[in-house]
Amino acid sequence: MKLATFKMAGGAPTWGLVDGEAVLDVGAVLGSRYPTLKSVIVADAFAEVAAAAAKAKSYSLADITWLPVIPDPDKILCIGLNYETHRKETGRSEVANPTVFTRFANSQTGHLSPIIRPRVSHDLDFEGELAIIIGKAGRYIPQGEAWSHIAGYACYNDGSVRDFQRHTHQFTPGKNFPGTGAFGPWMMTADEFAFRKSQRLQTRVNGQVVQEATFDQMIFDVPRMIEYCSTFTRLEPGDVIATGTPGGVGAKRTPPLWLKPGDTVEVEIDDLGILRNGVADEA
Amino acid sequence: MKLATFKMAGGAPTWGLVDGEAVLDVGAVLGSRYPTLKSVIVADAFAEVAAAAAKAKSYSLADITWLPVIPDPDKILCIGLNYETHRKETGRSEVANPTVFTRFANSQTGHLSPIIRPRVSHDLDFEGELAIIIGKAGRYIPQGEAWSHIAGYACYNDGSVRDFQRHTHQFTPGKNFPGTGAFGPWMMTADEFAFRKSQRLQTRVNGQVVQEATFDQMIFDVPRMIEYCSTFTRLEPGDVIATGTPGGVGAKRTPPLWLKPGDTVEVEIDDLGILRNGVADEA
Repeated sequence: MKLATFKMAGGAPTWGLVDGEAVLDVGAVLGSRYPTLKSVIVADAFAEVAAAAAKAKSYSLADITWLPVIPDPDKILCIGLNYETHRKETGRSEVANPTVFTRFANSQTGHLSPIIRPRVSHDLDFEGELAIIIGKAGRYIPQGEAWSHIAGYACYNDGSVRDFQRHTHQFTPGKNFPGTGAFGPWMMTADEFAFRKSQRLQTRVNGQVVQEATFDQMIFDVPRMIEYCSTFTRLEPGDVIATGTPGGVGAKRTPPLWLKPGDTVEVEIDDLGILRNGVADEA
Repeated sequence: MKLATFKMAGGAPTWGLVDGEAVLDVGAVLGSRYPTLKSVIVADAFAEVAAAAAKAKSYSLADITWLPVIPDPDKILCIGLNYETHRKETGRSEVANPTVFTRFANSQTGHLSPIIRPRVSHDLDFEGELAIIIGKAGRYIPQGEAWSHIAGYACYNDGSVRDFQRHTHQFTPGKNFPGTGAFGPWMMTADEFAFRKSQRLQTRVNGQVVQEATFDQMIFDVPRMIEYCSTFTRLEPGDVIATGTPGGVGAKRTPPLWLKPGDTVEVEIDDLGILRNGVADEA
């Protein structure tokens, strides 16, 4: 299933099942029990969602406003420097454990909404990534059980304000500006998205390929990321792990390639979909 | 007012007004509108709390289980290296902006509950701090208006698992183990806690003073921290800013002074109170 969070003009946020060029508003049917997509994941209610879809009203994808797939995750864990090409371009040393920083939920935005260039910086950069959405809670999850804790997958653009990211050694400020973390269009459930190391991630700016990698180039693979993160925190349903970005970021180009109003940035992952966002100055 | 979140044996979490050696269970009176202390702050309902306290049942402080003052903040922003004594002991360079890392809400614990030494590390350290609790939401808050955005103050022990903190350059893993962020006993509202730069923060381990500073030793003062944090994120009511720890942490002693089961660690702030925690191994 492809599950999305969205709203109609003038309406409240709801969630539903994407079916071709339409979305079925399952949130309107099951909302009393499952007001959000996160609550569906918490209850592991995917079978109920599939059954209720037949009763749900259908909207054309052209008419909806996409919201972040999970607008309200308890945690967003971002893995830094997880592709060798990106580690090398940043000049960082090799390390034995994943680099982890965090994003607040209010920094996220949905498919087709603009990524926001803040008034205090023009150093706005893209980072195409695969996002994992946790299904089953857990602490000290062994690598051998990691896949069973995943509810689904989505595209993520870990938009970064590089000067704020470099103010100190901690990345938090540059990774948390409102409207910089694009997450969508949908979550594809783990039974449908068959993760393979040969799948390709590609980021494009105005149609030009700026990042490209296959998942076999990850330094720490998916089970290792889940094992490590669940060592220092209890993972909860709906938690997001953004699994890192490949080389090619704008900051490391000569001259730098900063995102600017009017640009279009796309993150495409094989078999998963395309996350597309414009760029706009902060109002 | 001194406001706390607590529970009675077998009961659900509630919140109330600390009055001498008792706490008035105002949550039981106003809970339908204000189920949590955060919801009181969101509604700026302190006058209502004071009025309702007369109708609230009183419990002896000896009988309650203290919970983190705000168990469910939207954000916990931690300022690193904000006292010169600590910056120097860590060997970090001077920087022009605050260092910011984050904690998840599920890493917190309350007054008198043990700080948890995880099974994967013995490098458990203390960090006594003043915590600010945001009252009024805001983005781009000027320093001149910063004080008006504060709902109250509390003691914080930013307990740190040092080897995990040093796995990479990002602090997240070492700052998010469950049961390591002690927050309490109460929040003193901003009308009652008159912040002064001469006030003293002291951390004690088994009665021995290990950290001591006055607030005039902060590198970035309270208005600057609020200004900076509100530049990259919108601050919300109930958000917590842990304002940094002075020199004297266990990791920088020779030999290191790690917290171990049976220890008692206290964070005392003049005019505010004493946060006391034991230390226990993870079950």
